[in-house]
Amino acid sequence: MEALPIRDELRGKSPYGAPQLDVPVRLNTNENPYPLPEELVQRIGERVTEAARTLNRYPDRDAVELRSALAGYLSRATGFDVGREQIWAANGSNEIIQQLLQTFGGPGRTAIGFEPSYSMHGLIARGTGTGWLSGPRRADFTIDTPAAVRAIGERRPDVVFVCSPNNPTGTAVDRETVLALYEAAQAAKPSMVIVDEAYGEFSHRPSLLPLLEGRPNLVVTRTMSKAFGAAGLRLGYLAADPGVVDAVQLVRLPYHLSAVTQATALAALEHTGTLLGYVNRLKDERDRLVRELRATGCEVTESDANFVQFGRFDDAHATWQALLEHGVLVRDNGVPGRLRVTAGTPEENDAFLDAVRAVTKETPR
Amino acid sequence: MEALPIRDELRGKSPYGAPQLDVPVRLNTNENPYPLPEELVQRIGERVTEAARTLNRYPDRDAVELRSALAGYLSRATGFDVGREQIWAANGSNEIIQQLLQTFGGPGRTAIGFEPSYSMHGLIARGTGTGWLSGPRRADFTIDTPAAVRAIGERRPDVVFVCSPNNPTGTAVDRETVLALYEAAQAAKPSMVIVDEAYGEFSHRPSLLPLLEGRPNLVVTRTMSKAFGAAGLRLGYLAADPGVVDAVQLVRLPYHLSAVTQATALAALEHTGTLLGYVNRLKDERDRLVRELRATGCEVTESDANFVQFGRFDDAHATWQALLEHGVLVRDNGVPGRLRVTAGTPEENDAFLDAVRAVTKETPR
Repeated sequence: MEALPIRDELRGKSPYGAPQLDVPVRLNTNENPYPLPEELVQRIGERVTEAARTLNRYPDRDAVELRSALAGYLSRATGFDVGREQIWAANGSNEIIQQLLQTFGGPGRTAIGFEPSYSMHGLIARGTGTGWLSGPRRADFTIDTPAAVRAIGERRPDVVFVCSPNNPTGTAVDRETVLALYEAAQAAKPSMVIVDEAYGEFSHRPSLLPLLEGRPNLVVTRTMSKAFGAAGLRLGYLAADPGVVDAVQLVRLPYHLSAVTQATALAALEHTGTLLGYVNRLKDERDRLVRELRATGCEVTESDANFVQFGRFDDAHATWQALLEHGVLVRDNGVPGRLRVTAGTPEENDAFLDAVRAVTKETPR
Repeated sequence: MEALPIRDELRGKSPYGAPQLDVPVRLNTNENPYPLPEELVQRIGERVTEAARTLNRYPDRDAVELRSALAGYLSRATGFDVGREQIWAANGSNEIIQQLLQTFGGPGRTAIGFEPSYSMHGLIARGTGTGWLSGPRRADFTIDTPAAVRAIGERRPDVVFVCSPNNPTGTAVDRETVLALYEAAQAAKPSMVIVDEAYGEFSHRPSLLPLLEGRPNLVVTRTMSKAFGAAGLRLGYLAADPGVVDAVQLVRLPYHLSAVTQATALAALEHTGTLLGYVNRLKDERDRLVRELRATGCEVTESDANFVQFGRFDDAHATWQALLEHGVLVRDNGVPGRLRVTAGTPEENDAFLDAVRAVTKETPR
């Protein structure tokens, strides 16, 4: 690879992605531990078989039926009515973010995120030629609103990312902060504000979706990977003013969303009730992880997601390794002194907590 | 949309895509007219149902089984052995091309194509911030090798696109031309040369795949959309030196290829024998279209693809409209005086030829 004429900013870099290790308890990628119910598995088989009968034809380029179903789900889940023309879907929310940066970022433009946050925001910025600005966060991992507003005013980014609940810290962002950031972003440029609600269904707080009302430069992104237990499906979507949906058409690859993906997502959207039942179980388990980790003496960040950030460790990577030796894979996101654990099944979480107790006993901090 | 802060180069543009009209005979997007055989439809249902059982987990990020199957198919089909480590797959060959331009093109770099050619090459260049250079083609739509070599030497592009068979003209590119362009591209920079063989299976000539031997900066792209009759699946792939596969990992979105896409593609690759049988039928029909169009007095470009470029018309768009009024949808790619028709079933092609006869009788040229 070194001999190839790749772009300079890619040289010496590594591909993004958690190590995929074969261990008994995998709590490292914020997957939903509950397999889809068999009834839904069968329904997916049916709908995909039906779609396969016309697989020689291109899929619906505009994914009209799917976008209607997503609009229906979001409207029911949040009580805020959104229509099909406000929804756009792609292969994972990563592709949604890529399309947004191709449209509103790109060469000669910048995007800002408040770090530590979802590192793909910065990586997709790099991949689309968008300059990346790292904004501040407080020691407790909340966004320092006055400092963030100042950063936006001074650096005038074209795109502002707000991840709520924030990955990898679990921190939710309140309505007032998003409003302040949006106003600062409009005053500075105007810029687009992207609220990444990939973990929105796990939050104690209501969705920020209703903020779309009257804010044409606001975008909320979502995914079926987490709450819907469908990480393997790769279905992300956005809700925004219809103008934003029109704008991303200019950069989306035509027929980007396959007929089998559309059919599978539609089947899953017929079963939202069952799937959101698992979300409630996971929220309880997440809250238990916070409590029990604190009882072991760990410092734990408040979480509104399906994962928990915990520490502090003098050498977080050594603790990561020690947990792995106990058969438990968690995530080292590079936040100093901290690790991140996904809420798994009660049995997986017990195994994790046992490993933490064993490891912290072995390695006094 | 006008009020949104979209990139300047996108302003006033329209999304790519053929009009999707509901007419009896649709021969406008080079789809394979033959639905998948029922045995394969059932097998897709089985494999996707199985994949749905672990849909809560992320898909295989490296698509190892699928890449092995694609390597096996290419090796069998061309007689040139390629290994899994030389193959990369994505959501359509458009995504493959996008990843290649993100890696080897992008801001401050340029790509060249010999036009008229597949217009997505230029559009994906624009979407990735890559400058676009339009290279020459002869009046008969073949590549003028000395002129193309000169253009590469003078303009020093970072990426050279060679589409063979060429869309929308159907023109195959010979081995010697590709070798000359590759050498010119290495002398000028060095640059990557991308041979787009989306329609390779329909060609009278052997694949250019064996040229990969000893040429680390050469890439061949392929798709399952056309020969495999799976446009709805969105599965494109590349074959190249393993270094190229490593390099695109730096820009590919993690887990870009869903578990249902991987399962469906694997099912189709179990049935290559049947699917390639349809390819032979379509080649015969393509050759018949060339003959019968010539008999009507049309000027027809030699075709190695599953479509045929025909003309000349004083007003190609008026002829497009007239054919539509006869219930036949073909494609107006903007090549002056020409239209493109996809080889359909014998019945569809008869309907098309009848329409052409009726239209050319109505509108004397």
